[in-house]
Amino acid sequence: MALRWAQAGEAVIIGSREAGRAQHAAEKIKKRLGPGAKISGEENRVVCAACDLLVLTVPFEAHAALLKDLGPSIRSGAIVIDTTVPLAASVGGRATRTLTVWQGSAAEQTAELVPAGVPVVAAFQNLGAKLLTDEGPVDCDVIVCGDDREAVKTVRHLAAKIPGVRALDGGPLENARVLEQITALLIGFSVRNKTHCGIRITGLPPSALLRGGKRGGG
Amino acid sequence: MALRWAQAGEAVIIGSREAGRAQHAAEKIKKRLGPGAKISGEENRVVCAACDLLVLTVPFEAHAALLKDLGPSIRSGAIVIDTTVPLAASVGGRATRTLTVWQGSAAEQTAELVPAGVPVVAAFQNLGAKLLTDEGPVDCDVIVCGDDREAVKTVRHLAAKIPGVRALDGGPLENARVLEQITALLIGFSVRNKTHCGIRITGLPPSALLRGGKRGGG
Repeated sequence: MALRWAQAGEAVIIGSREAGRAQHAAEKIKKRLGPGAKISGEENRVVCAACDLLVLTVPFEAHAALLKDLGPSIRSGAIVIDTTVPLAASVGGRATRTLTVWQGSAAEQTAELVPAGVPVVAAFQNLGAKLLTDEGPVDCDVIVCGDDREAVKTVRHLAAKIPGVRALDGGPLENARVLEQITALLIGFSVRNKTHCGIRITGLPPSALLRGGKRGGG
Repeated sequence: MALRWAQAGEAVIIGSREAGRAQHAAEKIKKRLGPGAKISGEENRVVCAACDLLVLTVPFEAHAALLKDLGPSIRSGAIVIDTTVPLAASVGGRATRTLTVWQGSAAEQTAELVPAGVPVVAAFQNLGAKLLTDEGPVDCDVIVCGDDREAVKTVRHLAAKIPGVRALDGGPLENARVLEQITALLIGFSVRNKTHCGIRITGLPPSALLRGGKRGGG
């Protein structure tokens, strides 16, 4: 995602527990995109203090602890975008199954753990890393769920900067439950067919679509 | 579905608790398709005794009681296709939410209630009635899940008789959990956009697709 957004001209900071690792990842992307790319790496707390949009892309087993740790560093008014899927693989189970999260979904757990006034938006669960790191447009919709409608709009515009993506309003945050489970189903399809699958919603009117063009859809 | 399969030349018997109601529904379809259509209506028990493929299309609140009642009438070796979605609407809640079924999904509940030796296959949950009764091809995949691989194959061929459908192997029956939840998400999309939505899986190789053509894909 960092690659795709830097490609679209956004300023991206990759976060990690170790600033060095984040900087290394940012350098790799800069090498691919050229020196003009606005991408850097920092320690997680620095990123939280600096960014308006935070994208959480950690395995589910690291999810709650990380949020408890970083919560106080998150800027007031920042939006947290949760991409996490509670795969059973987190506890040694299968990647084609999910765990039941008490709050209903990983994203709803996140909403419980971030400071008050920080909206949580669920998105990007169904977009595999392979689709993002390949060249060219992505054949997948991004379904965006959240209770803060302005935040949902912002995240849809961000998603539509990825070519091929149609950024869809998926309704309230509780619908993240379905998005997270769809990922397990897609992993099953991908494994059975030795490929990388995505999802499209059909039958939507043009007004429901925010499309990712070559120059971004924002 | 009766309409679409009769259209494809299959022999269909509609079942109901009252034979008269089933016959009435069959007559309506016959009027639409012409007198050559092989479609009739019977009381549920008669249908169970007569058919190799049974399609369960009742609201979730009627699901378990119906299966307990009809189970003994189901022909040994028949395949039960479960299309049921445990929408919260069944207990006065929303159609955009699902109930948690103890067995994991309505389809897994069905598997517990049918006689031994009757394979249960989950499919068609994501295909709205409106898409089926309209003319022309359907813009939706049918994901077919089941533990009996031969039964899954049979149901995929049946699904591919509906024009526009791509019948996909969705893995084991437990994946019906995800299919059922996807329906709630699609209902949300449909309500918000005043339309009738479906789903497509992207990135699959041609070998994974069984396509419904004009003359059926079976």
